[in-house]
Amino acid sequence: MPPPPSDRRPARIQIERPEPALDCGRYAVKRSVGDTLEVSADIFRDGHEVLRAVVRHRGPEASGWTESTMARVDASVGGDRWTGSFEVTACGRWSYSIAAWHDPFASWCDELARKLRAGQRDLAGELSEGAVLLEQAQTGARDDDRELIEQALTFLRSLPPVAAETTAPATAPGSRRSRGRRALKARSAAGHDEAAYAAVLRPELLAAVERSSARAGLVTLPEPLPLEVDPVLARFSSWYELFPRSFGGFAGVERVLPEIARLGFDVLYLPPIHPIGVKNRKGPNNSLVAGPDDPGSPWAIGAAEGGHSAVHPDLGTLEDFDRMVARADELGVAVALDFAIQCSADHPWLSEHPEWFHRRPDGTLKYAENPPKRYQDIYNVNFDSDDWPALWQALLDVVLHWVSHGVKIFRVDNPHTKPLPFWQWLIAGVHRHHPDVIMLAEAFTRTTMMRALAKVGFNQSYTYFTWKNSRAELTEYVTELACSGMQEYYRPNFFANTPDILHAYLQHGGRPAFEARLVLAATLSPAYGIYSGFEHCENVPVHTGSEEYLDSEKYEIKQRSLDGPLLPLIASLNAIRRANPALQRLDNITFLETENDALIAYTKRSPGNAVICVVSIDPDREQQGLAVLPASLGLPPVCAVTDLLDGERYDWRIGRNYVRLGPRERMAHVLRVDAP
Amino acid sequence: MPPPPSDRRPARIQIERPEPALDCGRYAVKRSVGDTLEVSADIFRDGHEVLRAVVRHRGPEASGWTESTMARVDASVGGDRWTGSFEVTACGRWSYSIAAWHDPFASWCDELARKLRAGQRDLAGELSEGAVLLEQAQTGARDDDRELIEQALTFLRSLPPVAAETTAPATAPGSRRSRGRRALKARSAAGHDEAAYAAVLRPELLAAVERSSARAGLVTLPEPLPLEVDPVLARFSSWYELFPRSFGGFAGVERVLPEIARLGFDVLYLPPIHPIGVKNRKGPNNSLVAGPDDPGSPWAIGAAEGGHSAVHPDLGTLEDFDRMVARADELGVAVALDFAIQCSADHPWLSEHPEWFHRRPDGTLKYAENPPKRYQDIYNVNFDSDDWPALWQALLDVVLHWVSHGVKIFRVDNPHTKPLPFWQWLIAGVHRHHPDVIMLAEAFTRTTMMRALAKVGFNQSYTYFTWKNSRAELTEYVTELACSGMQEYYRPNFFANTPDILHAYLQHGGRPAFEARLVLAATLSPAYGIYSGFEHCENVPVHTGSEEYLDSEKYEIKQRSLDGPLLPLIASLNAIRRANPALQRLDNITFLETENDALIAYTKRSPGNAVICVVSIDPDREQQGLAVLPASLGLPPVCAVTDLLDGERYDWRIGRNYVRLGPRERMAHVLRVDAP
Repeated sequence: MPPPPSDRRPARIQIERPEPALDCGRYAVKRSVGDTLEVSADIFRDGHEVLRAVVRHRGPEASGWTESTMARVDASVGGDRWTGSFEVTACGRWSYSIAAWHDPFASWCDELARKLRAGQRDLAGELSEGAVLLEQAQTGARDDDRELIEQALTFLRSLPPVAAETTAPATAPGSRRSRGRRALKARSAAGHDEAAYAAVLRPELLAAVERSSARAGLVTLPEPLPLEVDPVLARFSSWYELFPRSFGGFAGVERVLPEIARLGFDVLYLPPIHPIGVKNRKGPNNSLVAGPDDPGSPWAIGAAEGGHSAVHPDLGTLEDFDRMVARADELGVAVALDFAIQCSADHPWLSEHPEWFHRRPDGTLKYAENPPKRYQDIYNVNFDSDDWPALWQALLDVVLHWVSHGVKIFRVDNPHTKPLPFWQWLIAGVHRHHPDVIMLAEAFTRTTMMRALAKVGFNQSYTYFTWKNSRAELTEYVTELACSGMQEYYRPNFFANTPDILHAYLQHGGRPAFEARLVLAATLSPAYGIYSGFEHCENVPVHTGSEEYLDSEKYEIKQRSLDGPLLPLIASLNAIRRANPALQRLDNITFLETENDALIAYTKRSPGNAVICVVSIDPDREQQGLAVLPASLGLPPVCAVTDLLDGERYDWRIGRNYVRLGPRERMAHVLRVDAP
Repeated sequence: MPPPPSDRRPARIQIERPEPALDCGRYAVKRSVGDTLEVSADIFRDGHEVLRAVVRHRGPEASGWTESTMARVDASVGGDRWTGSFEVTACGRWSYSIAAWHDPFASWCDELARKLRAGQRDLAGELSEGAVLLEQAQTGARDDDRELIEQALTFLRSLPPVAAETTAPATAPGSRRSRGRRALKARSAAGHDEAAYAAVLRPELLAAVERSSARAGLVTLPEPLPLEVDPVLARFSSWYELFPRSFGGFAGVERVLPEIARLGFDVLYLPPIHPIGVKNRKGPNNSLVAGPDDPGSPWAIGAAEGGHSAVHPDLGTLEDFDRMVARADELGVAVALDFAIQCSADHPWLSEHPEWFHRRPDGTLKYAENPPKRYQDIYNVNFDSDDWPALWQALLDVVLHWVSHGVKIFRVDNPHTKPLPFWQWLIAGVHRHHPDVIMLAEAFTRTTMMRALAKVGFNQSYTYFTWKNSRAELTEYVTELACSGMQEYYRPNFFANTPDILHAYLQHGGRPAFEARLVLAATLSPAYGIYSGFEHCENVPVHTGSEEYLDSEKYEIKQRSLDGPLLPLIASLNAIRRANPALQRLDNITFLETENDALIAYTKRSPGNAVICVVSIDPDREQQGLAVLPASLGLPPVCAVTDLLDGERYDWRIGRNYVRLGPRERMAHVLRVDAP
């Protein structure tokens, strides 16, 4: 025989399937400052009680919960899905929960109204129940509610408990002759006059009683759910990547900053700026032996001059760096640093903390490798080192060091080869006092790991975008990012190229290919980026079949200046992105049929703004197709649209719209619906 | 500054999205005895370590975990989804978890093999690592593994750490001249001889070292997941419902039991068998006033003769009941009782425990109602009563009372109007000592509540089947039940009619409609049922537009015998169901295109068995169509099929198969694929 149920009445209301909840609340979903979080859940119980529910939410500095009312998603059918929302106003860790209870007085009103409509005559029991509920509310009422409740109570006590047999309408206090006909209609064959009860069924009374009553059968989620709020740049940003040594160091970068700002970039990302190892230094094109003047790869971090907290003397001093960051700040450009946890053979840590590195039983030091690949110029730290707490702390200190120099964005190199618990701890440690710091995960690996990095705290993530070039690939991939649940925590950054990835499509497609990829990156994803050289359509690989650049900047210093034929298109796209809120979000995308696989079309919509993009992915030939606007988008039957790239205007309509794109005229339309 | 990480090395392996897990493990998924539970999860970590994983499971009586090996779902692509399974062998509450760890020796072998293939020459460090791993394994090895490990260690120490510059193959101990050519081929330009390492890379050694080593970096799910195992009847059963008073009470039922068994029914369900209240008794056709000879509704439970634990004197004695149950047991038929928590005005509890009922402030007792509907002959208990623990216990005692009289199945009336925590508690209480008891939820209400009842423990559930009559409705509904996740916990019972539900389709379609619905119920759902009268095609409603029967057996005694024109088809279907395992499951269904909305076709497959059903849902006209077998089913291009209803044989093929069905010849094919 089971033990008798516990003494406390079990709660009868169920709250199920709360959303958004990432892995059952194990990880936080993400929003950016100013976003609205919509929370929903199935809320129900046995019987016919009227339920109430709120979203409870608490910001990082708040001392208690704030509540927002929830309502049924589809009240008309009595559905059990409820929704409510709140705006997030500050960076940091929020939490939210759901509370639900039932409202005995509202339930009583609902039942009474149904009985009146059904013509039930004997209401003695019902009226006695109502009186008790009002008496209880009276006790807890605020001054401004008490009078209303007392009036209703007095009135209720005055009502006849059993309707007379006559068909003449009962007279309600204050009823006027002119209401007589309506009252008669509302009255059933031999029941009560429904209008007579208006005084106890009015919404004002319902609200007053609700305010005055304890929450009956209150239930909350067993645990609040976590929500990470970060700066808008985490969601919406345009990135430009350059090697400062190719622009004349920090001072040179400072000189091009106004142009970078004018082009509309929000973030300037710099590969590692630290001293570079000499031992095993790589030469041009990743050759194993460097010449005496070869600068080495910036990712081979550490030399006699210092490690992760130092700057390479050829770039300038730390003061030069600070001045560059300050200038960028003035111009509204954030400087992003690379955070690559690896050490050259000359990194000070190798001698200061030999226990932080992999040493084999025979005493040899293990360099980075993934057979058959070998990275002879770098050593990975050993996260399983016996001294791991000090190692972890040192790595956190590196990030905090650069935060103290004004850096708020870090592009983290190969995070998937380091332990996830380390990232979870490090990012929480950074955010503890600097919740506005953005961490971008540069991982190209299996989906589970890429997702897990975002779950443990990375604010933004590299993606497979460079390898998604057909219409089917792009549609499937963006749908996964935007609609599979990933949109709750994984913020894609669509880099169109990187120092490591020059895709075959760009190698063979020439300028039209660069234009197509640029428009796709900038309009599909709210965060996107290019690495310098893109604007020059640089497209020569180190050898056929490779995605590495010939004479890669990773191993050589270039003489770069900020020019190139694509800059006007880039500036235009960045301006369009800033002017159109629809392009600043990911989950608002709808792909459109084009009846031609070489044309990809999609629309993004946000309140008061709708943009339709059509891009040709064939860099060689003109392509014609029919972009189909489904009626379900809710656009007007005919809508005037403006191509934001060239100012041309068209009339588009629900249904098929003829499109012709090609390398001679234009590779893309970016159409704003003028009156969405 | 955050606190330094704790002293314990954080685990690096992630186990994510374990399945099946119902509402994050809050509720148990269900299986029946003899079923296999397949468990899967994303299991991964940073780096390239070789991972191992097991499903841990524990039956209701087990003292510890048993383990089953997990493997990658798609090992060829290194996917991170792992799966493993185990068979459930006993009724009751099981639990399962996942454990994962990494295997340093396997990782070492994997890396070594890749380096050998890549022609790496200097392996001194690698060999020293391997030796340490083998030494560690040696310490923990079982006697029969130790020798193998020691041999490998000796051999490893004998290997040259750096390959010679010569191209002559290195000589491995025991290598023969005939192997020379192969060894030469496996050898890279200037590296080691891969064959020479065969002795340390052999699977037997890998297994021996794994057995001998502690599990490195072991991780488990934070909490085990629950699994409820119940009897096969919970999943697969054919039900017949009859009012015993219409068959001459318990003795009369006992006389028809052999015929019920011969028809292939597994469960005989009886509406309430208890004394019926006199006060406010309902008359024929639910009239408010009963005549002196009217028997009343069996659901108005309780009279001077007793309440829920008593039997109605007109049906026989408790001894007669016991004899009937024993006879059913001999014949392989389970007797299912109704459990309806409501009391007539004459129920002993009303005087013995007035505090268990709703009493209004004016002293009146509240009868059951859902305005405008009123059930004046019954009173609901008050689950919020101050004396609720005693009430709950009394209700549990009622169920246990009937269990002690051999009843193992309860059809629970209107469970959705009682608190979910009550059901969770009651069902757990019943299952504590009687895990083979089956509870069927008779709820027709909103989806969330119907699902929740199954989640809190009901083993089987009524469904919306009676109201799903078009091809689109049936396809959508069965797909939801079988493929949306509901199949993990919600066992549908497709009753084709009930004493409360005579659907318009049956009212208007005559015998062909009854045949179609019977075949659909019996082949779509592994559990199905009919209420007596169905076999006679009884189809007259109390009035047009009603789903109630005219002169319903709920309020009158009928003189019934077990005959009726549909019995041969019923017997045939029940025999087909028992002979074809594919029809005993729900989640193995695939709907087929028919190119005619009046024809619904589907196939169900299980190992060694495949059944194809085609049913016409047009009771009036002949319908022709083309049932399309997709190649993805994996059936042979041409397959011989036998119609199990009439023995006819056909050749069906991948692609379109002509079908003609109609009221004159046959309404359905139930085709067994002869060599699936």
